[in-house]
This record gives sequence, C-alpha cells and structure tokens, in this order.
Amino acid sequence: MLVIQKYGGSSVADAERIRRVARRVASARAGGDDLIIVVSAMGDTTDHLIQLVKALTGTPPNREMDVILSTGEQVSIALLSMAINDLGHPAISLTGAQAGIMTDGAHTKAKILTINTTRLRQELNRGNIVVVAGFQGVSKKNNITTLGRGGSDTTAVALAAALKADRCEIYTDVDGVYTTDPRIVSEARKLDMVSYEEMLELANLGAAVLHPRAVELAMKYKIPLHVLSSFNHNPGTVVKEAGNMEKLLLVTGVACDLNVAKIGLFDVFDRPGIAYNLFKALADEKINVDMIVQSAMRDERNDISFTCPKGDLKRALAVVEKLHKVVGAQGFTSDEGVAKVSIVGAGMVSNPGVAAEMFEALFNEGINLEMISTSEIKVSCIIKADLTEKAVKALHKKFKLAEIAGCS
Amino acid sequence: MLVIQKYGGSSVADAERIRRVARRVASARAGGDDLIIVVSAMGDTTDHLIQLVKALTGTPPNREMDVILSTGEQVSIALLSMAINDLGHPAISLTGAQAGIMTDGAHTKAKILTINTTRLRQELNRGNIVVVAGFQGVSKKNNITTLGRGGSDTTAVALAAALKADRCEIYTDVDGVYTTDPRIVSEARKLDMVSYEEMLELANLGAAVLHPRAVELAMKYKIPLHVLSSFNHNPGTVVKEAGNMEKLLLVTGVACDLNVAKIGLFDVFDRPGIAYNLFKALADEKINVDMIVQSAMRDERNDISFTCPKGDLKRALAVVEKLHKVVGAQGFTSDEGVAKVSIVGAGMVSNPGVAAEMFEALFNEGINLEMISTSEIKVSCIIKADLTEKAVKALHKKFKLAEIAGCS
Repeated sequence: MLVIQKYGGSSVADAERIRRVARRVASARAGGDDLIIVVSAMGDTTDHLIQLVKALTGTPPNREMDVILSTGEQVSIALLSMAINDLGHPAISLTGAQAGIMTDGAHTKAKILTINTTRLRQELNRGNIVVVAGFQGVSKKNNITTLGRGGSDTTAVALAAALKADRCEIYTDVDGVYTTDPRIVSEARKLDMVSYEEMLELANLGAAVLHPRAVELAMKYKIPLHVLSSFNHNPGTVVKEAGNMEKLLLVTGVACDLNVAKIGLFDVFDRPGIAYNLFKALADEKINVDMIVQSAMRDERNDISFTCPKGDLKRALAVVEKLHKVVGAQGFTSDEGVAKVSIVGAGMVSNPGVAAEMFEALFNEGINLEMISTSEIKVSCIIKADLTEKAVKALHKKFKLAEIAGCS
Repeated sequence: MLVIQKYGGSSVADAERIRRVARRVASARAGGDDLIIVVSAMGDTTDHLIQLVKALTGTPPNREMDVILSTGEQVSIALLSMAINDLGHPAISLTGAQAGIMTDGAHTKAKILTINTTRLRQELNRGNIVVVAGFQGVSKKNNITTLGRGGSDTTAVALAAALKADRCEIYTDVDGVYTTDPRIVSEARKLDMVSYEEMLELANLGAAVLHPRAVELAMKYKIPLHVLSSFNHNPGTVVKEAGNMEKLLLVTGVACDLNVAKIGLFDVFDRPGIAYNLFKALADEKINVDMIVQSAMRDERNDISFTCPKGDLKRALAVVEKLHKVVGAQGFTSDEGVAKVSIVGAGMVSNPGVAAEMFEALFNEGINLEMISTSEIKVSCIIKADLTEKAVKALHKKFKLAEIAGCS
C-alpha cells in the first residue's frame, strides 16, 4: 500500500517534534507500507525568512521570494530524513524540483501543472521512504516556485493523485474537522466524515484545517483525505464523496473568517462591461476577490460591493481609485472591521429554507447583515467583526450541530 | 568585460552589509561590466544549520547534510539579488544546480567536474547581474552537493575559468594577503602580489584568506585572483604567476595552523606495503592526512608519524587502533597540543639554506621541532601549540618580512 502523509509546520517545529513524526513514520513503515512524507517549513521559519526580506527591501521580486521561502521546507526535509534514518529506516529527501513537481511560472502562487514521477518511483523501488518538500515546485524555465501558503496540502494531494496512492493522510495540530471552531463554541463536535464539497466551503470560509486548493484537487481525483492529529492517535475526519444518506444533513458546519475587507462602489453605470472592467483590473493585480454583490437600485445606476483578504485591500483600493470614474461610480468606501460567517451543508441543495433559518437566527441576536452570498451548499453573510462569536454560537445552536450524530 | 566577484559570509552577514555589497556591485555595473556575483551563506548561518542537525542526531547522512547546508547560500543569493534590484539593476539568483555547476557525488566534499554555462550566458545576455550560490552544485544523479567549507572561493574561480572571465575578485574581511597573521605580528605587511604556488602553501598552512582548492584551480587555468576587502577600497593582493624577479624573494610569508593533531606509531615493520596499508585505510575513511614522516631508526623497524585536522583525530585513531598490530607497531600515541608553523617562498627552490635558517631561529627561541616536512617552496615544523606565537614572531623577524618591499 502506498501512503502519502503530510505534516504541517507545527508538527516539525523542533527536534523533539521531528523525532515524534519520525517515530510515526517508522511505525507506518513497520506495517509494510510504501511511504511518501510531505513536510512544511518548521514552525515560524517562513515568517523568519519574510522578516529577513523586510529588513532589506519593501519590494522584493516574487521570483527571489520563492528562492528564499523554498529553503524553509528544504531544511525540514533534510532534518526529517535524518531522524527517520536514525530509526533504521532508509529515507531520502527531495526538493519540489527533485520530486518532479512542475508548476506554472506564477511566483509565490504557482499552480502544479504535472508531476514527473520518475525519481519518486525510483526511490520507492529502492526501498526508501521519500520525504518531499511541500509548498514548492519548479517552472519549465527551471526557476524555483512556491504554491503560496497552505500549498503543502496541495503537494500531498497532487502526489497522491499522480502516484495513485492508496491513502492520503493530512496531519495537523487539531484532530479533525469540527462543526465549528472549538475555541468559539465549546460544544463543537468532531465530524467523522465530511464531503469534499462541504470541506471545500469550510476551507474557503476560514476553517484552517485544509487548504481549499488541496480539497478541490482531492475532489477532482476522488482521493479520500484522512485529517488526523500528529500529537495523538485519535480517529480523525475523512473527507470524501458524499453519499445520499449524508445529504439529509442540512448543515454540517459553521465557519467564520476575520481576514476579510469590504469595498463598495456607489452608483455605478448599469450597462454591459462595467463589472468585467472592474474585476478584470482586480484580477490583473492578483487580488483575491471573494464575495461579489451587485444590486440594481435605481434606473441605470447600481451599487457593487465585493470582499477580499485584508492583505489585498490596499492594492484593491488603488485599482478602485483608478477605475471608479471610468465605471461611473459616484464614490466608494471600504471597511476592514467585518467578518464572514457561513453555514455549510450538502443537504442545503434541496432545502431552500435553510438560508432563511440562518437569517432568522442572526436577526434574533440583533446582528445586521451587510452582504449575503449563497451557493448550493453554503450561505455566507458579512457582519460586523465584533459580532462574530455571537453569530457563530447562535448558528451552531440553531442547527443543533452539537447534537447530530456524525455520519460515516 | 566579464567580472566574477565573490563575497564571503561576513560580507553578507546582515541587511546593512548586503546593501553595502549591492552598492559595490552596482558601481561595478555602472562601469559597464558584465557581472557574476558568488556569495556564501550569511555570517553564522552554516553553524546555525549544523546546530539544528546536532540537536537531532549525531550521525546525519552526508547527502542530507548537503540538502540542509545548501539552504544557507540560497538565502543569501535571494537577498543579494533583491538588494541589487532595489538599486535599479536587474539581478537574478541561481542555485548551484541552476547555474549548471556539475559535481561528483562526494557529499559534503564534492568536486566540480564541469560547468554547463548555458543558463549563465542566457541571463548575462538578458542584461542580468547573476548572483550564484557558492559552495554548492549538483551531481549527475540530480542530488544537491556541497564543496566543503571555503568552497565558495572554488565556485568563483571555476566560473571564471568556465566563462573565461576577464577578472576574478575575491572579497573578504581582510584587505589582502599578509606576510603573516597581523593579529600575531603587528609588523606583518600586506603583499601586493603573491604567486599561486606561494598562496597555495600559505592557504594550506592556515592562512584563511583563500581556499587552497580555489588557488589550485586558479593556477591550473592561469586566472589572476584579486583579493580585496569588502569593507574598504584599499588595493588588495593579486595572486598570479610568479615572474623571475619575484623568485629572488626567499621567504614571502609565515603561516601557522593550530588545527593539527599528531599521531605516531612505534616500531612498525620496515617492509614494502606497510605505509600503503596504513594510509590507504586512512584515505578510505576520508581522513585528511597532512604531514607524514617516516624514519628508519633500527634494523627492520621504523617509526611513522603523521598529522591530521583535530576533527579527524578520533576517526584516525580508530583506524590506527584497528591496524597497528597488522603493520607490526609496538604501540602508538597521539597529541592534540601541537601546531604547524611554516615559511613559504618561491625563492626557496634555489636556496637550500633557508630551512636551516628557520631551524636556527626556532632553536634560538628554545623551541623543539617534533616533525619537519619540506617542499620546494615551504618548510613546515610541528611544535608545541603554546609556542606558536613565539615561533611566528621569531620567523617573521628572521626573514625580515616587515622590511622587504612588495613586488608586483
């Protein structure tokens, strides 16, 4: 059986934790499995490297950011290989480039195009445990690229897909996926199983357990993901295809995301091409626009609001500043003091009343909804940031998430 | 004009120093030169990485040591490229592998086999200043290798040779090659010029300015090396082919090396193959044996002494322990409290009396000689370590090194 295991930065933060991961790997090996281990950079290494850069320049070229950031994982793969070797199991480390992880050339946020598995298979055939640097790859022009934060999950899933692995295990510092953040709601319950779609929404909505790109990739290639804690042996959560039974569950989880900023443009021309002009310009600046709400209020005039990560706000405002006259806006505002709360559930598809229940619960708490956006399996609302905890608790209670038995 | 500049770890130890190097590079660029900049890891990065490993294991595989150690230079090349870009000059960083530096597979002490210059020329043609990671390369099997400490000098010279550079500048924290260590002898004088052969002996004998392998390579390809300080604009020392005039100088410099341990075997069989057996076994263990002295004292019996770096002593003793009976030795001793003092000078070739003058100077100071070894242009003696300073001062005075005019 070929197993991919991925360990995050907190799981390899120091020598003792690296040894613990090595022991876990060794015990899986003793069970006879072929193993590929994907690791992130140790603890706060990435932040330390970013500090080095910031001390030097405010405008580092993205290509060089990738050169420096990729050293973080290179350090962890070497150390983990050493620790595994120490336990008597041959292990070899491979950087993203050596592991054949080919990406496009979009530095700091590259996408994996293909994986050349020759070297990986060679090392597995030699009986090696292969320790692969997550988060990184190499472009066609032989430049080092990184996949952006959380990219190590994506590396693990991409390897599982390319090598047709039998199992893909994601180890984190929590022991699975919860109905909501247990730090906010103490009754939050661990889910035994969650569907790709639900996990994708939860991941996109701020549940930091898995990177959304990784979930998307797992869904595409139908690879079940086992989310487990690297600190204990508790059963975790399996992310997989939803069966019919599970669709009966209206709401699976409540998520919240504080890394949100809102921008609104007033009285934009109501004619074709306006939205295109605006969001094309934002996309060109690589701004991650999330929710978009457009409402035609008066004749030939309407308002457009959208959200983006707080870190993109400054650049987004620069674009809006430049373009707002072109799209006919009378003005624009922005707000960083907002949060997004969402409910997610595969069962919502066939139950249109769920959104109304959500609005009711928030109304009962006196919480104003600034933006609303819905998809087949989620409803998200933008609210004032300081009401987040109140909202999450109310929703967790409303949909009886602490009570429902997990389905698997 | 194509210029190779190499900056050591202390020249890029922090953001301010990296900016200073960038300014120096930019001013060379403003003069119209094509530039390749070779850098070492920042300050004590390599030691920090070694500490990380030591906290984890006492027996790291060399392959994985190379994976972790090579990250040090990868960080510096990214930062220096950023700093140069900040000054308005396009710069791009290349790891050893990206720069086409092909080595053998001897991890932690690899040798450069060839340099594939395609990418380097491509980047130069694009108008880029190319910042190359020193100390590292890639093996035919696509494994990361390192050249061993001081290997960045070798990288710079190898690049100069492969690209037929017009000039190769080695920047360090001292402003040239001195007649002896100025910290020991205050009258020590900077040499304007020194021959490859002399520099090679000086480098091998503990003068830390240039790595001996780099000097050897420069000598082979007849590349003049300009040794300069990265902290000032003083004229440095040129290492180049010796002219006839310069050969008249008997002694160019005095060197000392405290990183020496001595091992002696008594009463070894005096028959063919004995020395071979012993030193083959030491070579197999990659022990850097330096001086070897064999003296046939009595019939069919003799003593063999040799020196090695202190760090190799434990492993050397293990070999001797295993082999000493086989080679018939009655016993063996070792001593870490020794030092090697040497005089170097191209003029010694035709002046056999120089060694005697050295012994006289040391005798006058009451210093006992434990081992002696001579070559065409140097004489080395092993003495008690605590007499090193006394010996160096006496030799510097004896050969009037503070007085002789530099030759260039």
